[in-house]
Amino acid sequence: MKNEFKIIPLGGIGEIGKNSTMLEYKGDIAVIDFGFKFPPPDLFGVDFIIPDYSYLLKNKNKIKAIVLTHGHLDHIGGLRFLLEEVKPSVILGSDLTLGLVKENLPPKLKSALKFEVVKPRETIKVGNFEFTFITVTHSIPASFGVVVKTDEGRVFFTGDYKFDATPIDGRQMDIEKLEELSKDGFDVLFSDSTNADESGLTGSEAIVGQSLFKIMESAPGRVIVATFSTNIHRIQQVVDISERLGRKVAFDGRSIIESVKIASKLGYLKVKDESVIELSDISALPKKMVTIVTTGTQGEPMSGLVRISNGEHNGIKITKGDIVIISADPIPGNERLVSEVVNKLFKLGAFVYYRKEDGIHVSGHCSQEDIRFMIDVVKPKYFVPVHGEYKHLVYAKKIGEEEGIPKENIFIVENGLGVALSNGKLRKLPKISTGEVLVEGNMKFPVKSEGDLTHIGERKELATKGILLVIVFLKKNREFARPIHIETRGFVLPRGQEGEILREIKAEVEKIVKAFAKKGDFGNISNEIERSVKSILKKSVKPPMVISSVLTEK
Amino acid sequence: MKNEFKIIPLGGIGEIGKNSTMLEYKGDIAVIDFGFKFPPPDLFGVDFIIPDYSYLLKNKNKIKAIVLTHGHLDHIGGLRFLLEEVKPSVILGSDLTLGLVKENLPPKLKSALKFEVVKPRETIKVGNFEFTFITVTHSIPASFGVVVKTDEGRVFFTGDYKFDATPIDGRQMDIEKLEELSKDGFDVLFSDSTNADESGLTGSEAIVGQSLFKIMESAPGRVIVATFSTNIHRIQQVVDISERLGRKVAFDGRSIIESVKIASKLGYLKVKDESVIELSDISALPKKMVTIVTTGTQGEPMSGLVRISNGEHNGIKITKGDIVIISADPIPGNERLVSEVVNKLFKLGAFVYYRKEDGIHVSGHCSQEDIRFMIDVVKPKYFVPVHGEYKHLVYAKKIGEEEGIPKENIFIVENGLGVALSNGKLRKLPKISTGEVLVEGNMKFPVKSEGDLTHIGERKELATKGILLVIVFLKKNREFARPIHIETRGFVLPRGQEGEILREIKAEVEKIVKAFAKKGDFGNISNEIERSVKSILKKSVKPPMVISSVLTEK
Repeated sequence: MKNEFKIIPLGGIGEIGKNSTMLEYKGDIAVIDFGFKFPPPDLFGVDFIIPDYSYLLKNKNKIKAIVLTHGHLDHIGGLRFLLEEVKPSVILGSDLTLGLVKENLPPKLKSALKFEVVKPRETIKVGNFEFTFITVTHSIPASFGVVVKTDEGRVFFTGDYKFDATPIDGRQMDIEKLEELSKDGFDVLFSDSTNADESGLTGSEAIVGQSLFKIMESAPGRVIVATFSTNIHRIQQVVDISERLGRKVAFDGRSIIESVKIASKLGYLKVKDESVIELSDISALPKKMVTIVTTGTQGEPMSGLVRISNGEHNGIKITKGDIVIISADPIPGNERLVSEVVNKLFKLGAFVYYRKEDGIHVSGHCSQEDIRFMIDVVKPKYFVPVHGEYKHLVYAKKIGEEEGIPKENIFIVENGLGVALSNGKLRKLPKISTGEVLVEGNMKFPVKSEGDLTHIGERKELATKGILLVIVFLKKNREFARPIHIETRGFVLPRGQEGEILREIKAEVEKIVKAFAKKGDFGNISNEIERSVKSILKKSVKPPMVISSVLTEK
Repeated sequence: MKNEFKIIPLGGIGEIGKNSTMLEYKGDIAVIDFGFKFPPPDLFGVDFIIPDYSYLLKNKNKIKAIVLTHGHLDHIGGLRFLLEEVKPSVILGSDLTLGLVKENLPPKLKSALKFEVVKPRETIKVGNFEFTFITVTHSIPASFGVVVKTDEGRVFFTGDYKFDATPIDGRQMDIEKLEELSKDGFDVLFSDSTNADESGLTGSEAIVGQSLFKIMESAPGRVIVATFSTNIHRIQQVVDISERLGRKVAFDGRSIIESVKIASKLGYLKVKDESVIELSDISALPKKMVTIVTTGTQGEPMSGLVRISNGEHNGIKITKGDIVIISADPIPGNERLVSEVVNKLFKLGAFVYYRKEDGIHVSGHCSQEDIRFMIDVVKPKYFVPVHGEYKHLVYAKKIGEEEGIPKENIFIVENGLGVALSNGKLRKLPKISTGEVLVEGNMKFPVKSEGDLTHIGERKELATKGILLVIVFLKKNREFARPIHIETRGFVLPRGQEGEILREIKAEVEKIVKAFAKKGDFGNISNEIERSVKSILKKSVKPPMVISSVLTEK
């Protein structure tokens, strides 16, 4: 059998989030990133969704490395669940990425693993893979694209990126190295496609600084900036502007404080000691000297900004003249929550900057011209758009075609359905696995499709309809030991008709029980009771879930 | 006591939807509009939300008129519920508005009511009110703003509007009449504020036609356009373009077919008979000769477009080369659903136009410059922004100030908290009522605040946690008649630990029952069982709702 370099996405295709790609070559496996995503609102009670890792479990002993591109949770958030069951020989990533990963792991798990910090342009051989780390610009510092070389060819995984010509930390996209490598040829480019349906080039982070400066300069009092805790560049800009304007900065919330600590220690964030004050000390300063950095740009219930908007934050009460800046876009699905927060803050007397046209946010992901530029630099033979919903992959494919890559050399893949490189030739593989893993508390539920999980289906029914319980208690001789007992939760009967309907239900259930008792077989009685109760209720109301228990004395 | 002309919003303030305003003067009441809105996703099982109408119920006999501005459901959708309990002397509106209202009412209710069609510029006296109807441009034809005159002064309710200089039906905003009336002075302007946080003037409907033409002209096969069923202008444009391009139009779905019928009959929509084909006949035509108009722009589960995207539409199967145009913006909260539909359509081989930059939709509501223009024309003494979330009201207020209305003459009101005009002077009133009415099937639940409804709260708990039932059967002598029975729905125990945990729960419940039996009082036993069961479960899992029934033989 010929050797093939298999590249199989485990997550991040046809969706935004839970990015992960598996590499397999000559019996060795490596995994690039292992993120999570948040569940859609109808997956009641689910905390996170992570990629299907059944193939990794089955091939545990082959896993040589986990390679991390950057420290966002859609790339590292699933690790704490995966690493409970799978132990790679080494975990590679930048100092900041690994710092954030470790922050996220239980101490016992952390100490059982080997981490290795890699530097830009560093090349590391693990098993039959050779990884070279390329600096890319994104909304978190120390982000890498990864070049992977095997005997079958060389491919480039961009990770998340945009071409930011004026990055805040001066660490430019390493176009030079990519161009140097591309002289020897890249076989395949796997590119981020998140904003592939947006024309133009994604704006530079520096633009946001200009808008923030204008707003903060004219702010009559306190400025509260909400941002993602890992958006170190954004935090750097808020700090720099505050220093210029003579404002002190207070950091609010565990995640912000932690990531400020890690990024400062590693030199990615530069904050003078005297520029920072404790949140508890802000009232000692004139309002015009105070900037607060907090979380909650997505309307997350426990976040700083949401507690502020509910008047439930111990350290921060909104007063007239406060300026709030929501320095992020709502993730699709969160628009309504964010809007609620904005309205509440306005009501409390703050003026809130939240609009696109306020210029207070730019994406960290590539738009159409970034992708075009990436293709021009890498000059790949094959192109595989990743990290995006299907519509984004379609738009990315279009750009690939426009850039002269032959149609048949552009592959739209799926989670579990990847490609194999052999002798510089790429082909599609059959699907290895499909589905995802739902995480709820400390339980993991592998699902192939949504309908797989009975308890989630039941929750949906309970959520919209409520429940009605019918309890029947029979003596050994199958006579009624007591009247039929009915309870409801999340369900109400039409006002004024309650007694009548309950009487009808009880009479019907009694009839059914007597008939079954006569037959001497209670085998199917629950279905029969459920059916009758529902048909009685249907006459006046949307029937709930019905559970009946016919219990006999023993 | 002096006479006051009271104007009290019942809905539409601090929210998008369920617009309604109550007028009261010298013992007479009139209601302008009575819409519904769709519930937020966490109001499980609720179908619609309508305004709190308790004040109207208490003053049933005073209600002289219901006055309708236009036929959108956020202005007329609540009527079928209100009119079950309240019968006004007359219902006034344009022919199209009343046509759509009647379409929505059960025949019996309809025949018990008096409807009166009003024409543009018509003035009608009802009780102590005088209403004059002013044509405004909006995304449905025959939309009115309403001038209301009483002895205390004259006010203008804009209804929903934008200044569209090139309306599809040529019916211009009646600026002339407004300017004429404003010479005698307007005391108060109540203006739509829906897009008050967007700069500029809202685009003309005609612009959409240009984009649609460009897309449809170059479409290689069928074109499927999804739009709101009442967006007659949009439908007119699709029909006109199809006629120009030699395409036949098929209308899909009851709501589209009905509104096309009503609008055609009244002359608001002009479709040549030979331009229309039945959906069942489309396969007889070359694909390039087919346009389909359907619903589903919001990803509504039963809509045409969603069934098409799921491959479940009997009449329409997507084939390669089909063009789908989603000619509407997602309503906040629907973004994720719409995105799913787009992705599925792409996967089936269609090319989908859904992006803002495709120019396939404009709003029907006023942006900042529309509001500015409205204030300039009406020149009101007082300004009250309505129809908008709080953030929109704040922005509208800002525009009012910029236009020279004194700060103290701009009122931000609330649902139930209105204003009173007396002798040309406006003052704020105390709140008359607060809350809303949730509609579920044919049940109506008045609520003052969300927490009011036990069954909704229970559904939330059931939705995220599921339920565990503990049933205990006791003989008359309070001995156990049979083993403790446990059932769950929407809840699972950690794999491998099920037996152990159930044994622990049963043992604990048995202990509790015995202790209570000894005391001879089962009064509080449910709470005690619930508490213990939850504390056992908490050790390994997120505990569900627990219901216990301790039943004794009788």
